[in-house]
Amino acid sequence: MKQYEMFEQVFSGQVLTGSWAQIDLTAEFTCGDTVKTVRGFYDGDGRYVVRFLPEIPGEWRWKVRGAVTAEGTEVCKPADGSRGLVKAVQTHFEYEDGTLFFPFGTTVYALAHQEDALVEQTLESLQSAPFNKVRMCVFPKHYDYNHNEPPCYAFEKKEDGGWDVNRPCIAFWHRFEKILKRIADIGIQIDLILFHPYDRWGFSELAQRDNLIYLDTVLRRLAAWPNIWWSLANEYDLNMEKSLNDWQEIEEYVAGNDPFHHLLSNHNCMCFWDHTRKNITHASLQTKGLSEIPRWIRKYTKPVIIDECCYEGNLPHFWGSISGQEMVRRFWRCCASGAYCTHGETFLSEDEILWWARGGKLKGESPRRIAFLRGIMESLPGPLTPRGSIWDTVLQEGEALEKALTRMPEETRGFWRMFSESIHRMDACDRTAHLGGEHAWESCCGEEAYLTYFDLQCYGEQTVNLPKDKVYRAELIDVWNMTREVIAEVISGEAKLKLPGRDNLALLITRIQ
Amino acid sequence: MKQYEMFEQVFSGQVLTGSWAQIDLTAEFTCGDTVKTVRGFYDGDGRYVVRFLPEIPGEWRWKVRGAVTAEGTEVCKPADGSRGLVKAVQTHFEYEDGTLFFPFGTTVYALAHQEDALVEQTLESLQSAPFNKVRMCVFPKHYDYNHNEPPCYAFEKKEDGGWDVNRPCIAFWHRFEKILKRIADIGIQIDLILFHPYDRWGFSELAQRDNLIYLDTVLRRLAAWPNIWWSLANEYDLNMEKSLNDWQEIEEYVAGNDPFHHLLSNHNCMCFWDHTRKNITHASLQTKGLSEIPRWIRKYTKPVIIDECCYEGNLPHFWGSISGQEMVRRFWRCCASGAYCTHGETFLSEDEILWWARGGKLKGESPRRIAFLRGIMESLPGPLTPRGSIWDTVLQEGEALEKALTRMPEETRGFWRMFSESIHRMDACDRTAHLGGEHAWESCCGEEAYLTYFDLQCYGEQTVNLPKDKVYRAELIDVWNMTREVIAEVISGEAKLKLPGRDNLALLITRIQ
Repeated sequence: MKQYEMFEQVFSGQVLTGSWAQIDLTAEFTCGDTVKTVRGFYDGDGRYVVRFLPEIPGEWRWKVRGAVTAEGTEVCKPADGSRGLVKAVQTHFEYEDGTLFFPFGTTVYALAHQEDALVEQTLESLQSAPFNKVRMCVFPKHYDYNHNEPPCYAFEKKEDGGWDVNRPCIAFWHRFEKILKRIADIGIQIDLILFHPYDRWGFSELAQRDNLIYLDTVLRRLAAWPNIWWSLANEYDLNMEKSLNDWQEIEEYVAGNDPFHHLLSNHNCMCFWDHTRKNITHASLQTKGLSEIPRWIRKYTKPVIIDECCYEGNLPHFWGSISGQEMVRRFWRCCASGAYCTHGETFLSEDEILWWARGGKLKGESPRRIAFLRGIMESLPGPLTPRGSIWDTVLQEGEALEKALTRMPEETRGFWRMFSESIHRMDACDRTAHLGGEHAWESCCGEEAYLTYFDLQCYGEQTVNLPKDKVYRAELIDVWNMTREVIAEVISGEAKLKLPGRDNLALLITRIQ
Repeated sequence: MKQYEMFEQVFSGQVLTGSWAQIDLTAEFTCGDTVKTVRGFYDGDGRYVVRFLPEIPGEWRWKVRGAVTAEGTEVCKPADGSRGLVKAVQTHFEYEDGTLFFPFGTTVYALAHQEDALVEQTLESLQSAPFNKVRMCVFPKHYDYNHNEPPCYAFEKKEDGGWDVNRPCIAFWHRFEKILKRIADIGIQIDLILFHPYDRWGFSELAQRDNLIYLDTVLRRLAAWPNIWWSLANEYDLNMEKSLNDWQEIEEYVAGNDPFHHLLSNHNCMCFWDHTRKNITHASLQTKGLSEIPRWIRKYTKPVIIDECCYEGNLPHFWGSISGQEMVRRFWRCCASGAYCTHGETFLSEDEILWWARGGKLKGESPRRIAFLRGIMESLPGPLTPRGSIWDTVLQEGEALEKALTRMPEETRGFWRMFSESIHRMDACDRTAHLGGEHAWESCCGEEAYLTYFDLQCYGEQTVNLPKDKVYRAELIDVWNMTREVIAEVISGEAKLKLPGRDNLALLITRIQ
């Protein structure tokens, strides 16, 4: 047993035939005051498996009960390279050992539903790609450019042709887990999509009772894996067969039956899931309205990942036809707002192998630049949070406004009061559209670092206002050409910086003393 | 007298000294059933001037009463090159003779407040620029990069140093009108800004009673000019001294005292003026939220001009630092939405001569491309209106949604109902931001032409749905490189078009039979 690594025990027992989901098999693990109960699963051929994730080192006593009876002790050695689950801490992510985790995700929805050779090629691509998270589905995908039949399915079939959730397909799960393991070994987090609407096989139309049995299988098998996140859905709101109540039940079921509390979110097409709910660890958002990120971070007080903001490609679809440059811009907008972004790639191809769904090779121009950005983010002294701006003041009303105005020079307060009054006369849609176009991408790491992405702005100069008691260095970053240039060695307080007057640049100011 | 050209009569009379605004001088012009009354003004040195704009040819009888008594007849010849006032017709503009007018504006706020040599240079620049409208102020401007003293002011001063609106400065108005005339002679419409907040002289702080006297002077002098539009303000909502009631009174005064009903609007910083008001002929909007244009066009059922959406330049200000490419993109977004856009240029310069305020020379990359766009717009068979999209359906609710769904194939209605339901669960801000990022810039001229600006989308192909009973040609337009390429000679109904998979392209489909 090693801290942060899955501990698996296999027992022999009766061969099951009619049904082998939801078996009576539990294991209690105790170490000092810590007691965890996990459920085991039937793995075919009379194999009964119990999986556990030891999060603290020391001596663990274990007791298996139900279909198998066994007990013993196991010494868990301290972590040796492993870092544990990724957890949400305030509005960022950390491994359990405290190492910061900045998600740089990609999307390969049907990664596991391809022939072995293609899966191999995808894993090879991931090996050298800058991504440390991949969004992928348990169920196969049916959609444009996704017409191939998967090698196997999550369940055996019933006599009537329907799926028998009580008989998980052992071959499927073995193959699926082998792929997950390979991805994990590359150091990539798996944002595992449990349901999605793009289906011709009937997986999206299971009865809710069957959905919960399926989830039970997933949790017994995968909850002890340290690198899995639960994404309840891709585009939950486009699932015709599930009501909001069904989704809440699914959310509660997953959260309530996961002994290790993996990251958990639910991904939308249109209306965001209610990420203020207590089971939700972070907001997984599909949207292109990135200027609202600071508001969402404040609203959820959880990490925000833009898990779909269009893909680099040339499809005839709106969502699959942005340039590499625009993909990179969106990553910078997110990161420089204190949020995170997820990549995908959709280039038309004769063989229908598009990275976003089936994997294969990466062809786009964005991954190199995403790697460059990731390097910068990981070199920061800590996670970024949105930086306050004048909008935070003028968007207040009444007493809150008056209080905020006390931070402004007195002679300017009348002006800002009038400005605020005009903003509040706008209807909500006009205001959002209007202010979205005035948004600046600005974040900071306390007083240690300040990151601003200038995006479309071609500033010839900028004046920055830094703490007067600290000393900083300013670097100009060309986000596309991937250059970093120190433009001021030692600045403090108010400092005017000369800039080259072109777009797509970022300014990183870091404390040197 | 010529149709559509200003007819001016000068009479001699008593020399006025103490006050010469609001004099008693009216003239009645009658031609058949048409009777128009105008007010004349005192022009110094005992000169009394009456200006009239004959909009129909024929014999006009005129009678001057008040400070001068005179009458006579004048034959008005039919228009000979002149086209009359520009008027709003539905959601576009036409000259009085029916010729379409597509505004391609620029911004030179303090054009008339510069030394003669600079004014000359500006006029020279305008001569070869692609702009047919210029936003400019009556009052001088005080702001960043605007610190020079103007050659003269609209009023004489009182003993106490305040402005005497009862004594318009004749030298100012002569010089101002000379400049207006030069601009008019180039064929450019003057979007004359009557008030603005960027002031150190006190013009923005006149008492409301004095504002109305000033407006009276403006109307007596300029209402008979065929090429003037009334812009009540630049950023009305940043004028500290004027309440909303003051602005309504100003709007009503101008509309009520303009015998010729020039175009009239009011320009915002934040909250739009209420462009549904009956005196308002078109919406003059400052905003960067361009995806909302179709909604505004529907709401106002008037032409929409985006009279400020940032300027091409390199200022340290957000509003003055977009690239030429971005300026051109914004023009295309507006035009391909059935709206209009206004240019400005703000490059840092040692001499503080920035085009947007003081004029001089154009340095940017956008004007050439705006000229290219203007050529295309003027070659269309008619004005563009926003093209309906799937959003028009799914943004409906209840019975309206059900009615809209009847236009969709039956098997898809359940999906769109669900999609619509999700959209309606979003809060208004989330929805606006979200849908803004999914917006397509699409417009049409009935079934005669279809213009789509693909903007960020790098489509490798697109399928268009055209009327089956008409025949069209498709042209691909590179908006930056200014090329037009016919990519389909003869198409009809549903047609798939191959596209090059890069961004910043537009598709123009025009009927050939």
